[in-house]
Order: sequence, then C-alpha cells, then structure tokens
Amino acid sequence: MTTIEGVSEIPFWKGHGTRNDFIVVPDPDGARSLSAAEVAAMCDRRGGIGADGVLRVVRGSAEPALAALAPEAEWFMDYRNADGSLSETCGNGLRVFARYLVDSGLAVPGRLAIGTRAGVVQVDVGPVGDVTVDMGLPEVFETSFALVGGAKYEGLHVSMGNPHLVCVTDVPVETLDLTVLPDVDMAVFPAGVNVEFVNIVDGAHAVMRVYERGVGETESCGSGACAVAAALAVRAGVSAGSWQLSVPGGELSLTIDAETGHVLLRGPAVVVARGVWL
Amino acid sequence: MTTIEGVSEIPFWKGHGTRNDFIVVPDPDGARSLSAAEVAAMCDRRGGIGADGVLRVVRGSAEPALAALAPEAEWFMDYRNADGSLSETCGNGLRVFARYLVDSGLAVPGRLAIGTRAGVVQVDVGPVGDVTVDMGLPEVFETSFALVGGAKYEGLHVSMGNPHLVCVTDVPVETLDLTVLPDVDMAVFPAGVNVEFVNIVDGAHAVMRVYERGVGETESCGSGACAVAAALAVRAGVSAGSWQLSVPGGELSLTIDAETGHVLLRGPAVVVARGVWL
Repeated sequence: MTTIEGVSEIPFWKGHGTRNDFIVVPDPDGARSLSAAEVAAMCDRRGGIGADGVLRVVRGSAEPALAALAPEAEWFMDYRNADGSLSETCGNGLRVFARYLVDSGLAVPGRLAIGTRAGVVQVDVGPVGDVTVDMGLPEVFETSFALVGGAKYEGLHVSMGNPHLVCVTDVPVETLDLTVLPDVDMAVFPAGVNVEFVNIVDGAHAVMRVYERGVGETESCGSGACAVAAALAVRAGVSAGSWQLSVPGGELSLTIDAETGHVLLRGPAVVVARGVWL
Repeated sequence: MTTIEGVSEIPFWKGHGTRNDFIVVPDPDGARSLSAAEVAAMCDRRGGIGADGVLRVVRGSAEPALAALAPEAEWFMDYRNADGSLSETCGNGLRVFARYLVDSGLAVPGRLAIGTRAGVVQVDVGPVGDVTVDMGLPEVFETSFALVGGAKYEGLHVSMGNPHLVCVTDVPVETLDLTVLPDVDMAVFPAGVNVEFVNIVDGAHAVMRVYERGVGETESCGSGACAVAAALAVRAGVSAGSWQLSVPGGELSLTIDAETGHVLLRGPAVVVARGVWL
C-alpha cells in the first residue's frame, strides 16, 4: 500500500457538480497540510483516486492565515487544482463543498457563508438536492470574437473575477470542434480567456459548451455559466431574470438577482463515494 | 447521495498495476450482481470513482456458473470492462486482484489459483510488493507490419489468447504518434490487433509503447508485455529467458519459463484507496 510521508491515511469523499469532480478532504482542525505532491497523487486518474481538484474542509478559526481571507466564514474551502497548485474558488466545487458540510453534519441546511481565497461566498443548501451559490457581480465589457475552424464567432467579454468571452451563435454548438484552443484577440485577453459557445433555445433556456483556458473543453464551468447569464441579460435588455442552461455535464439554473445584480448559480452536487486514501 | 436500485452501498478498494486501474468489489458470497450500468457508473471518471474496469471478488463455490469455468480455483475474478461488458481476464488486473486477496486477509501469501473466464491462472503473491502472473503459452506466427505516420514497421504476430503485433524498431518509440490507430494488414488481423512498438536497450531490457485495439494508446498492457517477451526470445534465438520492460505506466519483468514455456509477468500492484460507493 502507498503511504505518504508521515501521513498514513486520509479520509475523503468524492463528488461532482455537473461532472466537475472533486475529492473532499475533511480537516476541521487544520491538522493536515496537504502538499502539492499529495494533491497531485490523489487527483491522478489512474495512479490515484482521480478528480479535477481537492476541496480541503477546514474551520477558519483553525488556520489564521485562511481566516484572514474570509473572517466571517466558519468553514473555509481550501481549493487545490489537480496539479496541486492553489486556486481561489470554483462554483461547481462550492456546491459539492456545501453538500458535504450538510451531509456530514458539520453544518445545518440553510444559508452558509463559505470562505475562499476570493473571499466569503454565500451558499444556499437544503437537506438534499441542488445547491445555489452566489457568484457575485458580473462585469460586462465590449464585444470581441473567437475563431473556430476558420469561422468567426462574435462574443461578449464578461468578467466573473476571471475573464470570459460568451459567443451566442446559431451554429449548433455540438458541431464545433473544441479540441483545439479557439483563437481570440490577444490584445483584449492578454492572459487568455474562457470561451463559451451558446445556442439560445428560447428566452428561458440555452445550451453551452465551454473551452476553459489552460484546460481545454470541459463538461461544465460555473463562472462560465454565470457569464452566459450576464450576456443573455444584456441581449434581452434586462437587468434581472432566470435562465436554464444545459451544459455537457448536466443542467444549471442561473438567476440574476434584481436587488443585488449578483448571479446565483444553482445546480446538482452529488456525493458518490466515501473512503480512505492509503 | 446516489443510490443504485436496491443496493445502497458497495464497499470497494481502488488500485492499479502499472497505471492500469481497477475498482475491486469484494463479494465473497456472490451476493452482489453488479449490472453493466452499475459498473459503468462506478468506472465513470467524473461522475463515478473512475477506473479501467471492475474486479468483483467472488468465491467460486458461491456461483456455480463461474465455478464451472474454473473449478479448481477458490477465488474467481469477475472482470468487467469500464463500459460494463464482461471480459475474460487481464494481466494487470490479476496482480491487483491477488494483492487484494492477501491484503484483505482472504488468502495467505504464496501461490494462488485464481479463476477467470479464460480458466485458472496461477499467481505468486508475497506479503508485500510485486506480484507474478503466469500468463500461459505464447503462440508465435508470421511477420507482418504496421504503418504509423506513413512509416512502415515490421512486426511479429504473437498470440497470448488475444492477438498482438510486436514491432521492434530503432526509431525511438517516444517519437511515434500513437493518437491514431496504426494501419495493419486486415487480412492477417481481421478482428484487429494490439500493436506494440519496442526499442531494445540491451539484451535484458527493452522499452514498449502499446496501442490497444478498441481503446487507443494505454500506459500498460499485460498480454502485450508477454507478447514482447516472446518476440524478444525469437529474436535472440532462445526459448527461455528474462527481460525487463519499461512501459509508460512503470516497470514490468517478463520471464519465459524453460520448463513450461509459459510467460511469467511480474509487476507492481498498488492499492491506493478503500471506500464505499454510495
């Protein structure tokens, strides 16, 4: 059996939100400092358990450095990418994180304030079922474009903290070749951009595929779904509303709150296994 | 949480042999009939645990239909592919299966007779470390060829129960583009073939990459490694010997036994997690 230096066994849950999958590592007392190598080993899809990332569950009060980032939150989501690097936050991950807190008995259903490296996030989680994450205020910028297979798609530049280019098109998104990075205007997106391709089904329902920068096509992208909602609102000339968004990994519901202007991302959070990493 | 019809929780172990990974499902009493849909859900790398296949561990005496396939074996490896379909056997899987039997206390270290849909297989497993599987007699046929990127590679047709084409070449195997199926002579291989590309390092050590029919390039192929040993023996004009074989997923040792002519496949079997599928 594998042992990691000084740590013999690490309890974990595995779950996913619209097929963006995570290993949840409970560590309420902050007793477990997961190294980048440990995270990468756990996320390795053949040599390990396999996941897009690790969500370490730590009580903010147990780690002052984390508490300083989100002092109001009882629980902090220490998000690590599959390669072990740190990341600010993740909309699909927050749903799984909140579901874990409730299913494990660490939190009661209701509104939870969850700490992340991007600050405190409000999450609504019931005793079972879908979870809603307040993804904050979108910022809408100018139009730009993406090139796929020589064809040009006009899009809207939206920031959800990270950059998105939302391209609404009549070309069926399932026909697009997203095996290669779409070309974008590097003067507008010097740090790259996540590109969403969207078909409108009707005023309340759209279909999305997404190319995530640095990753490739994924089955879901929480912030990308929110950027789509913002673009659909601009297109409809409204400042609030609700949309259903079909992504390859499942179904998401997006609401732009009339009062705050925040985008609320609602979707599934499914726990599929519990275990011990050896 | 996910529940599968009528089955609330399924205990499992996860492990791999040279990065060919498996979910081991203990079922000594044959009480658990895993449906194809359940296996596919567990093997799903994002929506499930993720693996190349499931190894159900069942006592032969508990399931007469399986016992009939391998009456001498106490334990039967009910191997399922990731899509839920049945499969005969798997060299890398047998190592993990045997390691599970010993680590879980179901068998004592030593020589185990393990039942498979291809008959009884002899496995040598110690209290820790690598595991050796008797992969049986190779059959060597004529030479043939594979085409990769327009270049022709001569190879030897070897059967280990399943068909292989072993191409020894001076072209560094790491430079080959194995993202597409190599072209082969369909008159020789009407049902397709697994193609191994091999660089000889010295008389006792070679490097292999493999394209598995129906799958694509994989990091390891147990029967492919055995076919390589048979081809290296033919090349060296010997009927027995030992070779170390480096595959993308790790290191394997192959021995052709002087007495039986059988190929013995020795390699790692690593258990990385234990848990419960919900």
